[in-house]
Amino acid sequence: MNIILLSGGSGKRLWPLSNEIRSKQFIKIFKTENGYESMVQRVFRQIRKVDRGAKVTVATSKTQVSALHNQLGGNVGISVEPCRRDTFPAIALASAYLHDIQGVSGEEAVVVCPVDPYVEDDYFAALNRLGELARSGEANLALMGIQPTYPSEKYGYIIPVDQEEISRVDTFKEKPDEDTARAYIARGALWNGGVFAYRLNYLLDKAHELIDFTDYEDLYAKYDTLEKISFDYAVVEKESSIQVMRFAGEWKDLGTWNTLTEAMEDSSIGEAVMNDSCENVHVINELDVPVLCMGLKDVVVSASSEGILVSDKEQSSYIKPYVDRIHQQVMFADKSWGSFQVVDIEEESMTVKVTLNPGHSMNYHSHERRDEVWTVISGEGRTIVDGMEQPVKAGDVVTMEAGCRHTIIADTELKVIEVQLGREISVHDKHKYELER
Amino acid sequence: MNIILLSGGSGKRLWPLSNEIRSKQFIKIFKTENGYESMVQRVFRQIRKVDRGAKVTVATSKTQVSALHNQLGGNVGISVEPCRRDTFPAIALASAYLHDIQGVSGEEAVVVCPVDPYVEDDYFAALNRLGELARSGEANLALMGIQPTYPSEKYGYIIPVDQEEISRVDTFKEKPDEDTARAYIARGALWNGGVFAYRLNYLLDKAHELIDFTDYEDLYAKYDTLEKISFDYAVVEKESSIQVMRFAGEWKDLGTWNTLTEAMEDSSIGEAVMNDSCENVHVINELDVPVLCMGLKDVVVSASSEGILVSDKEQSSYIKPYVDRIHQQVMFADKSWGSFQVVDIEEESMTVKVTLNPGHSMNYHSHERRDEVWTVISGEGRTIVDGMEQPVKAGDVVTMEAGCRHTIIADTELKVIEVQLGREISVHDKHKYELER
Repeated sequence: MNIILLSGGSGKRLWPLSNEIRSKQFIKIFKTENGYESMVQRVFRQIRKVDRGAKVTVATSKTQVSALHNQLGGNVGISVEPCRRDTFPAIALASAYLHDIQGVSGEEAVVVCPVDPYVEDDYFAALNRLGELARSGEANLALMGIQPTYPSEKYGYIIPVDQEEISRVDTFKEKPDEDTARAYIARGALWNGGVFAYRLNYLLDKAHELIDFTDYEDLYAKYDTLEKISFDYAVVEKESSIQVMRFAGEWKDLGTWNTLTEAMEDSSIGEAVMNDSCENVHVINELDVPVLCMGLKDVVVSASSEGILVSDKEQSSYIKPYVDRIHQQVMFADKSWGSFQVVDIEEESMTVKVTLNPGHSMNYHSHERRDEVWTVISGEGRTIVDGMEQPVKAGDVVTMEAGCRHTIIADTELKVIEVQLGREISVHDKHKYELER
Repeated sequence: MNIILLSGGSGKRLWPLSNEIRSKQFIKIFKTENGYESMVQRVFRQIRKVDRGAKVTVATSKTQVSALHNQLGGNVGISVEPCRRDTFPAIALASAYLHDIQGVSGEEAVVVCPVDPYVEDDYFAALNRLGELARSGEANLALMGIQPTYPSEKYGYIIPVDQEEISRVDTFKEKPDEDTARAYIARGALWNGGVFAYRLNYLLDKAHELIDFTDYEDLYAKYDTLEKISFDYAVVEKESSIQVMRFAGEWKDLGTWNTLTEAMEDSSIGEAVMNDSCENVHVINELDVPVLCMGLKDVVVSASSEGILVSDKEQSSYIKPYVDRIHQQVMFADKSWGSFQVVDIEEESMTVKVTLNPGHSMNYHSHERRDEVWTVISGEGRTIVDGMEQPVKAGDVVTMEAGCRHTIIADTELKVIEVQLGREISVHDKHKYELER
């Protein structure tokens, strides 16, 4: 199976655990034998379990590449969108990537799937069958239709011509009201889970029809000139040869705190104490200090270094406009090389804890407008400052004036307290250099 | 007026804003024209407003001396209890302090009052009259009785012989059930607010009767040998000559989050956002990151570097056993010289932001089991390291190995990031030295 996972943008609806640089699919919230895994880790593990040879490609933006490598390791293809251009250009780019870079034949089927459904393994077995259906060529597109469990107003509906397991599609309906949804369901309608499969050539032909490009490299180079257009609008709505396959297994859309907490095995992650009078309360606490809940009902509490949410579960779906109003320094980020955590902000200084994974290093870089001081608090490694390499270990201090080129290389896991000093501290004040070695 | 304010111990019931070293009376929660003031600041200001010449002595433990000086300045007497020995020894010590150290005549009256009632100025005017009553010598003790506003089960009651403004006391009753309280009130009973006045000689005579000591110095020296005994038990219950003065003004006991939030002028202190569906919600947020509340009713949220409380207001009065279970590093403290804030804890390091007030310094000290690195992030001052003094400013770095004697002196407000490095970091690993200058 060739599968493209669409990994979308910043999920403010799960603030404060998601932010501009950490999307909801990277939050480690699902309990496993060895700790917790994120949505993307869970989906990746499930795909591999159902089909060990599955070729997984994640279509995403530059900002997620570090987190993806960090959480999935190297054994995954990543089709990086140079900028956001909606789903049709993203799928066209990922398809060209599969064909031109990964060498997938045009006759092979590709399944496109969002990265964040909360499902069991049977879902991925169904994706496999959907791919086979697409490959058979009975129709140009094969969609997965989720058997509705209630007349939801928040999903799109696929209306098939009959109630067979595999049917031709009659029409699509966008988010109806409850009564209309009930009528659709009576006719055998299915939720549109955003999953579809096609033969690679089909999609590449569509892409060449709509975009003037030669190959993957060319498409990548002109990506920022492409029109923003959804796959539904550009392809699905204009296609008459579409099949839908029913899926009646478990399927949850964990887009809000309310639905997300339903998928949690325990009522809390992180340090939390609840008294007996708490009912249906969930706590996700990423801070080092405890959360104490007393006498709450139907409430979610989420605390991270970005902020603290305390919300009635139903109300939590209305979070977005409130988070939009909160403009804030990004306080924590997972990177491919490790992570950083802002621990103190003053007017003319910022203090950050930097953790480097063994064998990793920062870019070799300099700042124009700030001095920096590193105090190594654990581990061993090497610093390179203006070309000079020196070993460092816990207790060592390195000072760098503005303009000075520097990096740090971790031989073991290495933790550093970095004090940044200056009047205009900004993430944009960074010049990168090639390291001559 | 001579007034002794009893400043009690750690108020866990207002966790996470109060902790082992910060009691509730020091939390800055009451809005004034120039920011916020604490209970102790509010009471001190009110006393001075009613009686500019009032001689105020705070009876407290060593742990509060820094916070008291920090919040009240130097113009206050502090009678320091070397250890906790309940109210009778504390009042005896403070009385000896007034007589022997402050030179107050034995004929003068002294009013003893808890440091944390939430009251208006008329209360302190009443305290002044209570002092005059005690001085007149009509009785040995003069108590203040609070006019009950409801049949509370949580206060002690004073039963006077009649319903005059000033009466002899018939008897005392401890926390009755509601029906009994109602019956008491019908007989003119009053709440015991823990306020009483006496002529200084009366109390000193009692103290000499019960304790073998010569003067303040002697009492202080043998304080740890004294029996723990309350003033009520040692004095009030055995005294037949007691008057009570009615007080019908506003009086609130802000001992729980529920009652405390009632006294807040605004619904939040610190960064907080609430949506329209929140009802009777209060947020006290000392962190640098925002708290977002949605769809909550009758809830208090309090966040500090010690932890986060989210509680139904009624339930918040049952907090103590839960907080007792939370054993935790003290993360923040106000000191006479400034403040400290733990910003990061690792296995073999701890990072602290130290803020020194202008003109102040740390003790000259050393550690046996940890190295330290200071990075000055703002301000100017001087460091003394193993006897050598050097000027420091923002960006300067000072490294100190274990055993090395060191201090820092602030010429302006001075902020320092201190990285502590070692396997056994403890507040007890500190040797103080006299600074030879």
